[in-house]
Amino acid sequence: MVGSGIMASRLSTGDVGLQLLENSIATGLGLAVLILVLAPVSGAHFNPVVSIVDLLGRGQRPLDPIAYIGLQVIGGIGGAILANAMFGVSTTIATADRIGLGTALGEVVATAGLVLVIFGLDRTGRPGLVAPAVGAYIGAAYWFTSSTSFANPAVTIGRTFSDTFAGVAPTSALGFIAAQLVGGAIGLTITTALFPRTTTRTEHP
Amino acid sequence: MVGSGIMASRLSTGDVGLQLLENSIATGLGLAVLILVLAPVSGAHFNPVVSIVDLLGRGQRPLDPIAYIGLQVIGGIGGAILANAMFGVSTTIATADRIGLGTALGEVVATAGLVLVIFGLDRTGRPGLVAPAVGAYIGAAYWFTSSTSFANPAVTIGRTFSDTFAGVAPTSALGFIAAQLVGGAIGLTITTALFPRTTTRTEHP
Amino acid sequence: MVGSGIMASRLSTGDVGLQLLENSIATGLGLAVLILVLAPVSGAHFNPVVSIVDLLGRGQRPLDPIAYIGLQVIGGIGGAILANAMFGVSTTIATADRIGLGTALGEVVATAGLVLVIFGLDRTGRPGLVAPAVGAYIGAAYWFTSSTSFANPAVTIGRTFSDTFAGVAPTSALGFIAAQLVGGAIGLTITTALFPRTTTRTEHP
Amino acid sequence: MVGSGIMASRLSTGDVGLQLLENSIATGLGLAVLILVLAPVSGAHFNPVVSIVDLLGRGQRPLDPIAYIGLQVIGGIGGAILANAMFGVSTTIATADRIGLGTALGEVVATAGLVLVIFGLDRTGRPGLVAPAVGAYIGAAYWFTSSTSFANPAVTIGRTFSDTFAGVAPTSALGFIAAQLVGGAIGLTITTALFPRTTTRTEHP
Repeated sequence: MVGSGIMASRLSTGDVGLQLLENSIATGLGLAVLILVLAPVSGAHFNPVVSIVDLLGRGQRPLDPIAYIGLQVIGGIGGAILANAMFGVSTTIATADRIGLGTALGEVVATAGLVLVIFGLDRTGRPGLVAPAVGAYIGAAYWFTSSTSFANPAVTIGRTFSDTFAGVAPTSALGFIAAQLVGGAIGLTITTALFPRTTTRTEHP
Repeated sequence: MVGSGIMASRLSTGDVGLQLLENSIATGLGLAVLILVLAPVSGAHFNPVVSIVDLLGRGQRPLDPIAYIGLQVIGGIGGAILANAMFGVSTTIATADRIGLGTALGEVVATAGLVLVIFGLDRTGRPGLVAPAVGAYIGAAYWFTSSTSFANPAVTIGRTFSDTFAGVAPTSALGFIAAQLVGGAIGLTITTALFPRTTTRTEHP
Repeated sequence: MVGSGIMASRLSTGDVGLQLLENSIATGLGLAVLILVLAPVSGAHFNPVVSIVDLLGRGQRPLDPIAYIGLQVIGGIGGAILANAMFGVSTTIATADRIGLGTALGEVVATAGLVLVIFGLDRTGRPGLVAPAVGAYIGAAYWFTSSTSFANPAVTIGRTFSDTFAGVAPTSALGFIAAQLVGGAIGLTITTALFPRTTTRTEHP
Repeated sequence: MVGSGIMASRLSTGDVGLQLLENSIATGLGLAVLILVLAPVSGAHFNPVVSIVDLLGRGQRPLDPIAYIGLQVIGGIGGAILANAMFGVSTTIATADRIGLGTALGEVVATAGLVLVIFGLDRTGRPGLVAPAVGAYIGAAYWFTSSTSFANPAVTIGRTFSDTFAGVAPTSALGFIAAQLVGGAIGLTITTALFPRTTTRTEHP
């Protein structure tokens, strides 16, 4: 939970004129460390899409994902407020309209890829590689998608609380989240096709 | 196959004014993740030169490489079209003429080095290091060669379908592919000289 | 000890017009290598906050941390002087006033996160991952905090000896150090809550 | 040997306007891959200082280092010529005078640190970490030293054959090499003090 807060705190860095490159490197590195450190605590679920896919793919108890998603959204909003405080920006609702056909497609691709990375590694018995792989993936996805998104509904909601470089208006945020859910479904389909769960593998954290 | 598609999707990022540095970091990170995740599925063959060298060096069945190369080219073209769609660019044949003696030499060096990295690690029983090593190598090769290429015929063909920053005219593409094949042959020669296959090594994926 | 000296030597790179991105990448990489190489010698304690938290969390002998802190401060100052010499800058007391509510909050967040990374990995039996994780964390923390600090009192003191891009006036330095100590206490509280030390784990360096 | 050639080929990238950041990332990544791939062949000795320190520290046969140094210098020069050819620059002796007290001190620090990284890891039974650590170290050393050097006499000699951004006049090169040898001696002294070779450790490549 600390995780999504700190992660979202990066959202306001645009205030100080940082560019996308800086953002992508910082996010990739920070995210890898967060997942690495917090994996033993909560499975490092900072992302509602990942929690939902995990529920569908594994047949987990549904209560956990619901609690996770609530905390993820709280973490995303809290992180945006903390970031605003650090950079001396007042917390207001974002007004930037960022959704469009191209960015929605970008968001679908980004989220599908993220799900493939996480569950592809998980299903081949390599969960220990998830942390660096997700960090590298998100660092790269900033560039190869047109939406520069985190592929994460909790972060998207957090971004509506920061009327800055990284802000997203609530109406755009709905479009982003819809695209992320579609991407999650596509990612789960591809993952299941490529990595059918036929054998029980041992998983080393 | 998903792999070369996503990878090639990076081809159009130049539209939004990204520079080579951003491209090289994104490509290096993304490629490392792709190889890592997909290695258990298809051996992560996204590159016809690698498939051909693999066939020559290992005495594999020739059918597999032929099927791979077809899918790799389809993936490269599909990725370029997907990238065009994400960035709202129409798919047209590229017109940029990029071949020359210097860039052809660069492409030979880049591809020879790539083959050396992949098969050098493979022949010394370290295939698990191929994913990060190839990512780092391509990230560096953007700079130390004059052609900034992917050392990959499938990607080169994909680039002819995007008349953007990353586009390559079909006539130039032929020169690139020829240089890549020459580089692959040189790389295989060097690899065989440095790492003669005298002992059977165990390979941990 | 060599460590904080070399690390602090980066403080003057601003003289030659380097920007924050360059600084963050260089610091992250350099710090990871330093910790990696020197961990078997001194536990790679370059940071008084880390030494204090280690004392409180582990019940270590208090003498070691006191000696460490003295050497860390000497290392920080020596590194700044060495860096000034390399870049042909005379060593004078810095005059830049950098403290404020936002930067102090940033420093609290940065130090709390650093303590969480180091001791979270340590308490889950993964000290071998501390070196790359701290390097990545500090590389990212340059950006997601508003203070761009090292979260390190010894480095902060060193920075008062370089009236350059990276310099900090002594009065500001006191505020930074106070914020770092508060961050260290918060980090220890979070670490203890998330990773209660119930079992004795084996630690592989 | 292929190694120093490819590595040195990066020397001319300045022609195309690349800046130091790009150079440092490319060099760090490329160097890590080179050492990783070629370590089983030649121990990945691309650096005369490293070969000399190895001789002094280990009591190796002196013939090997002498042969290595010759090949390293040939590799450095060949790499510069190859790079010039790729970028369409004619090979002429460099004229840039780059030595001074500050840069010489930077070169001493850079080389001492490199020796400490390589032999510190080696003496603590972690040679498998040398490749990424040297890559990260050189990537960082570009910035925290004032000389932006490779801390490598063979590369320094190669740089005299490229009258470009990266070129070094032969008189300056002599000063650089002297500083590198001093740095190597200091590095060996520090390494021996910190990591006395009391026990025979097993070394896993």
